[in-house]
Amino acid sequence: MTHFADRLLDQCRAKGAPVCVGLDPVLERLPEPIDTGNPAAAIERFCLGVIDAVEPYVPAVKPQSACFERYGGAGVEVFHRVVRHAKSAGLIVVSDAKRGDIGTSSAHYAAGLLAGDNGCDALTANGYLGGDGLEPFAEVAQRDGKGLFVLVRTSNPGGDAIQSLRLEDGRTVAEAVGDVVATLGQRDVGTSGYSSIGMVVGATKPEDAVALRERYPQQLFLVPGYGAQGGGAEDVRACFKPDGTGALITASRSVIYPGIDDSERAGGTAWQIRVATASEALRDAVSDILSHPTS
Amino acid sequence: MTHFADRLLDQCRAKGAPVCVGLDPVLERLPEPIDTGNPAAAIERFCLGVIDAVEPYVPAVKPQSACFERYGGAGVEVFHRVVRHAKSAGLIVVSDAKRGDIGTSSAHYAAGLLAGDNGCDALTANGYLGGDGLEPFAEVAQRDGKGLFVLVRTSNPGGDAIQSLRLEDGRTVAEAVGDVVATLGQRDVGTSGYSSIGMVVGATKPEDAVALRERYPQQLFLVPGYGAQGGGAEDVRACFKPDGTGALITASRSVIYPGIDDSERAGGTAWQIRVATASEALRDAVSDILSHPTS
Repeated sequence: MTHFADRLLDQCRAKGAPVCVGLDPVLERLPEPIDTGNPAAAIERFCLGVIDAVEPYVPAVKPQSACFERYGGAGVEVFHRVVRHAKSAGLIVVSDAKRGDIGTSSAHYAAGLLAGDNGCDALTANGYLGGDGLEPFAEVAQRDGKGLFVLVRTSNPGGDAIQSLRLEDGRTVAEAVGDVVATLGQRDVGTSGYSSIGMVVGATKPEDAVALRERYPQQLFLVPGYGAQGGGAEDVRACFKPDGTGALITASRSVIYPGIDDSERAGGTAWQIRVATASEALRDAVSDILSHPTS
Repeated sequence: MTHFADRLLDQCRAKGAPVCVGLDPVLERLPEPIDTGNPAAAIERFCLGVIDAVEPYVPAVKPQSACFERYGGAGVEVFHRVVRHAKSAGLIVVSDAKRGDIGTSSAHYAAGLLAGDNGCDALTANGYLGGDGLEPFAEVAQRDGKGLFVLVRTSNPGGDAIQSLRLEDGRTVAEAVGDVVATLGQRDVGTSGYSSIGMVVGATKPEDAVALRERYPQQLFLVPGYGAQGGGAEDVRACFKPDGTGALITASRSVIYPGIDDSERAGGTAWQIRVATASEALRDAVSDILSHPTS
């Protein structure tokens, strides 16, 4: 069984850049006509189409659980089928579910979402409950070759009101959470030098990203916020080590909803070609950032 | 439309005490023989039986989403049916899902879990992403007469490593999150004086509960940790105001898994009588605590 971090880094090398396409399906933006009586089927068709379109260009996808849970049990069934389709296409699947609870409940989430052949490759989690709330996820990750990305510094403006507060001991709240994550991750470090337990660090907070990158050498960063949320090339560069490893850059809306004109809404595969092109552009942009260490 | 806090307080008065039974169904502890080929059906039968048993004695139930999600889309279907059954029995339903994301994703969670006739009465949420991540939940709560309980001080031991850290400005991290919650809640205060936006404050941290109770007069506290997790009478009392309002005490394992001897596992309703008795005992214990302000 290959360690999650080693597997992710291999895939990133094979595809040419450490990038990830977010799957955030919302009915209002789907490119094809929708049977409004069956929204879950509509988002399933869209997600499978996006996966097929981006598969040649990117190593990973990140389905947003909220978009599927919106449609109840049927939506959750679709979520699991989308995960399965992406895995069978050889993509690494990071389920963006941001789960976190006391240990006994986290164990249920880990069993249902992350464990075994039916689980995704990695899960996002919330560390506000501390180490014992994350422990069951870490155990499954180590046992099954899976990964975890714990929210440390999020990309939204409101995160500052908590995460960038300064503690008496000089650390920020984000660093206090990060320290719990780094300690938890020490026991499962791959040959790449990275742990199966990584962090979410937004591309919209570059000064923080520099400090966190320095502080947590064993943690992979899952980096949202590039593109639609405003993160640019310099912001992205701050999340990597000088050797070009250490981060997985995600983009959602800019890739899965490229400008689609109304003539294309009639269906067909024209929209998939645009999505494929957008994912190729994401890959090339990040590859370009990494090949020019100072701009 | 009645305000959530007013509705909850009315129900607590009608049933005799502000208590809530947690629905945390796990296969290993179910009282009846299980068809292992259909675990979702087994937890559904159990939860419906618990609801029917406790309904005369308690105003509210709190299904733990993780226990249902463990069984994929079928489990989530069961979750929604359990919510529906409890609501139709006149119980207030607090879905313990601890969701939290950036605003666009939180809006999907709010739509899928909280909004409208199909949604539960209240939802637990994680505030690590700050006010903009909670905003969509607060909007739905205000619009639809629903409630929110944001994690401030959790009952597990590991929570200390984050929540009790002291900030440069003298507050704890829990208070920093609490301040965001209190600000958010100001716009929707019921005639009871309580907001639709409350907090989760564990019964295992009584000194903190005293300070938080003082600091947040408009917030209802959802209080886990009584019973199985070790919180006692004094710990519970700290979560209430002198007038006996301000908290909803939850207990799960001590009520839904009372000692059941093996002869009862053959089925029938004997286990429901034990569960009913345990819920009656929970109600009486909390009622007793509240009628003796100093012990």
